[in-house]
Amino acid sequence: MEVWVLRLGHRRRRDPRLTTHVALTARALGCDGMILSGEKDEKIIEGIKRVVKRWGGGFEVKYEKNWKKIIKEWKGKIVHLTMYGLPVEEKINEIRNCRKKLMIVVGSGKVPAEVYRVADWNISITNQPHSEVAALAIFLDRLFEGKELEKKFKNAKIRIVPQEKGKVIISL
Amino acid sequence: MEVWVLRLGHRRRRDPRLTTHVALTARALGCDGMILSGEKDEKIIEGIKRVVKRWGGGFEVKYEKNWKKIIKEWKGKIVHLTMYGLPVEEKINEIRNCRKKLMIVVGSGKVPAEVYRVADWNISITNQPHSEVAALAIFLDRLFEGKELEKKFKNAKIRIVPQEKGKVIISL
Repeated sequence: MEVWVLRLGHRRRRDPRLTTHVALTARALGCDGMILSGEKDEKIIEGIKRVVKRWGGGFEVKYEKNWKKIIKEWKGKIVHLTMYGLPVEEKINEIRNCRKKLMIVVGSGKVPAEVYRVADWNISITNQPHSEVAALAIFLDRLFEGKELEKKFKNAKIRIVPQEKGKVIISL
Repeated sequence: MEVWVLRLGHRRRRDPRLTTHVALTARALGCDGMILSGEKDEKIIEGIKRVVKRWGGGFEVKYEKNWKKIIKEWKGKIVHLTMYGLPVEEKINEIRNCRKKLMIVVGSGKVPAEVYRVADWNISITNQPHSEVAALAIFLDRLFEGKELEKKFKNAKIRIVPQEKGKVIISL
């Protein structure tokens, strides 16, 4: 299943670190790529590309100002993560079984009402205020049923060997 | 099981939004409280307290400059979330079954080596670089086995009614 994240409404002054966490979470937990929308921010895109080069895998990241165009041209289904949506537990099987490309939309500031309308699913990870990074992480963990935690990243230049204490990094 | 988060090394200029996301994620996903360490930041603490007042529950948040003191005086077990640690899948049952109070340590910048030594478990949510917010979310989801998503928050002044499309908020 091909899965992308669409990060809406990025603000260059306010959001760089959170947007970076969204992208790295998407990559680490098995997505194929992220499309950044909102304000253009080459530094973020370059930063993510550097991580991919070093840590491996085929995660793509690109910028597109016009999110309506992205959604219009998307040949697959769309999930919008929002605290106002239906519980992930109720809908995750249906989403997993759609067997189409999936776009996961996560906002930064206020998300335009149109996103709620065009999404195939508006999904909440609790109806409490928390974090788009946390919501994305739990959504992906449920979507991939935990298998994403064992994902291998090809062509990595560096790899961690899990330890009980301390740090072991090997260069490949 | 009483569960707290210890946010290490908060930097007032750099980390406010991520630390806020850590705290809100901890609250939404069933923790009892968060201790902020690093630079003092009243604005964050006040912000979280406002969320608790409005959205309910008994989540506590406090500041303690000296994290070594917190850990020394902690009467329970300590989990440190780090990309260098052992996979969460291997250790989560052991952690859940310890039946003691649990402190989950998450860093901001570089975490002091001592933390790795004093932690009862150093746990990774994948060995890839991503986000302490994502790591905390998945850790809590595994610890509480998904039951945290149905948690009720007492004395809330506001509550969301999940919707397929749009937003419904009720004042209580």
